Amino acid sequence: MSDRVASETELIDVYLAPLAAGSPGAFGLKDDAALIKTEPGFDLVVSTDPVIAGVHFFGDDAPGDVAWKALAVNVSDLAAKGAEPIAYTMALAFPEAPRRDWMAAFCAGLLEAQTSFGCKLIGGDTDRTPGPLSIGITAFGKVPHGQIVKRNSAQIGDHVFVTGTVGDSALGLLLRRPTPPAWREQLGEDHSRYLLARYLRPLPRLALGPVLRHCASAALDVSDGLLKDAGRLAAGAALKIDSQTIPLSPAATAAINRQPELFESLVTGGDDFEILCAVNPSKCDVFKQQASQARVPITEIGVLTRGSGVTLVLPDGKQLTPVRSGYDHFRTKE
Amino acid sequence: MSDRVASETELIDVYLAPLAAGSPGAFGLKDDAALIKTEPGFDLVVSTDPVIAGVHFFGDDAPGDVAWKALAVNVSDLAAKGAEPIAYTMALAFPEAPRRDWMAAFCAGLLEAQTSFGCKLIGGDTDRTPGPLSIGITAFGKVPHGQIVKRNSAQIGDHVFVTGTVGDSALGLLLRRPTPPAWREQLGEDHSRYLLARYLRPLPRLALGPVLRHCASAALDVSDGLLKDAGRLAAGAALKIDSQTIPLSPAATAAINRQPELFESLVTGGDDFEILCAVNPSKCDVFKQQASQARVPITEIGVLTRGSGVTLVLPDGKQLTPVRSGYDHFRTKE
Repeated sequence: MSDRVASETELIDVYLAPLAAGSPGAFGLKDDAALIKTEPGFDLVVSTDPVIAGVHFFGDDAPGDVAWKALAVNVSDLAAKGAEPIAYTMALAFPEAPRRDWMAAFCAGLLEAQTSFGCKLIGGDTDRTPGPLSIGITAFGKVPHGQIVKRNSAQIGDHVFVTGTVGDSALGLLLRRPTPPAWREQLGEDHSRYLLARYLRPLPRLALGPVLRHCASAALDVSDGLLKDAGRLAAGAALKIDSQTIPLSPAATAAINRQPELFESLVTGGDDFEILCAVNPSKCDVFKQQASQARVPITEIGVLTRGSGVTLVLPDGKQLTPVRSGYDHFRTKE
Repeated sequence: MSDRVASETELIDVYLAPLAAGSPGAFGLKDDAALIKTEPGFDLVVSTDPVIAGVHFFGDDAPGDVAWKALAVNVSDLAAKGAEPIAYTMALAFPEAPRRDWMAAFCAGLLEAQTSFGCKLIGGDTDRTPGPLSIGITAFGKVPHGQIVKRNSAQIGDHVFVTGTVGDSALGLLLRRPTPPAWREQLGEDHSRYLLARYLRPLPRLALGPVLRHCASAALDVSDGLLKDAGRLAAGAALKIDSQTIPLSPAATAAINRQPELFESLVTGGDDFEILCAVNPSKCDVFKQQASQARVPITEIGVLTRGSGVTLVLPDGKQLTPVRSGYDHFRTKE
């Protein structure tokens, strides 16, 4: 028996169909479309963020990690909108028929992720491509009617909060590169492992969803770097962030203690998948209390004021208005 | 000014946002997720079929044609399920920043298609890829609660119908190849143009949706070749198709008159985007009448009987049970 999947039928029946088990609208992945039964009183939220080998992950990443992250990046968008994940579709494009052991590990990672996030595979497509492996997930969530938390609806005077810690994933990416950075040695095994895990297996902040719906005037997940995404949240307002308020993990702190220039990577690097949100002053106390009850750590990093643009205030008092503050796939070289 | 798109912001604001105009759930494409307000009494149907340059279309196809087909293949799946298109998301991956004139023509084609099909862009994603151009559309349609037309619910005794004509697109593909076939010359300009248009600008059979909901016990669109898709419809039953009942266009008839071997391409080639459906004998008269009122031509090509597999009966009485009856991206060479 070959070690590679031999047909689309095998790919679907053996590997993918188990991920759709118990989801009536998936029709066992034996139809050309899937059904989402909508609940009265709820709206449907949709997010689509494909990941491509060599762009969003390394081709030799463990297949279970690739699968986890492919779903997590989409579920993170749902979380930031206050939505609860219910289902997803997946379009897979392979440069060659995948190895059976790769496929099994990939689907095991996906099963872990979908179980953890509370959604199931309902449909998709498989293709061959002359390009690299690409995983195109579209995730669906439900949100009570009219309660979606938008990105550009923050108001002047709102306080800005971020969940968890910032920049771990950017450091994890540096550690994951073929040639690890010099500071890896000084960092120690535990810190390195932590940062790598934050990069490879991000945890969407689903527990904050109901709190956002109740308290936030706007929110998004931090996927293109804190400064760039803060600029999106601020939209028509100004935001001054004191660099010392930015929450850092012990591992990230240890890394910048050894190499202070890394700080820029922390605030412009992508893939944090923390949530950035704006909260009206009248709701800040309730927000803090509910976030604490939901066991989601939050940190206030600034207040929206009249003006425009995000400014980072460094410990020496210098103010930085970054020109290039995050990732843009199409930015012309300046 | 460069002739290429200079940033993601330009890509979204200048080219894509107009496709979302008038769709409140798209948030002007300025959010990380989109909202679908669901109507009471309706279920949501989802289809996702990405297209990749060099696999599903030629890299130098006219951008407006590429756009049309990328949306049409997804809308065709909705049509076969009896659903009415309402919205779509699109994930674009470009090998390099696209040319502005390419992007303008692509979006013009998409606008034409979405206007014709009755849906709007509500969200998506743009990426750079080391691979070829890829367009990942996920289309959403609505169907009255419980009325989705499934693929594998046909019954023994059902009559099998196909819309329009079969195989035009397979011939159009042969004509589109860098080296056109010898029979092109004999075919004449009008026939060639017709076949090419059938390949490049398929027309989803949306008008048949309500008729399918009312009359069909099962349906799917013919995307991987008539014989392969007939096998899917037949599922646990047998289907004998008299080759002379298969509806052919004047252009396809002219082509096989000149080159009879082309017949195999016609019944195994993909991209027809006609609808194949099974109808209980008690509903056949109503089905024919309603299809005629909807101005969708239909042809009966067989009856489902006990047994399994699709058999093609040739004019000389020979019976063919094709082993390889359609496209499989992962089939191991036999």
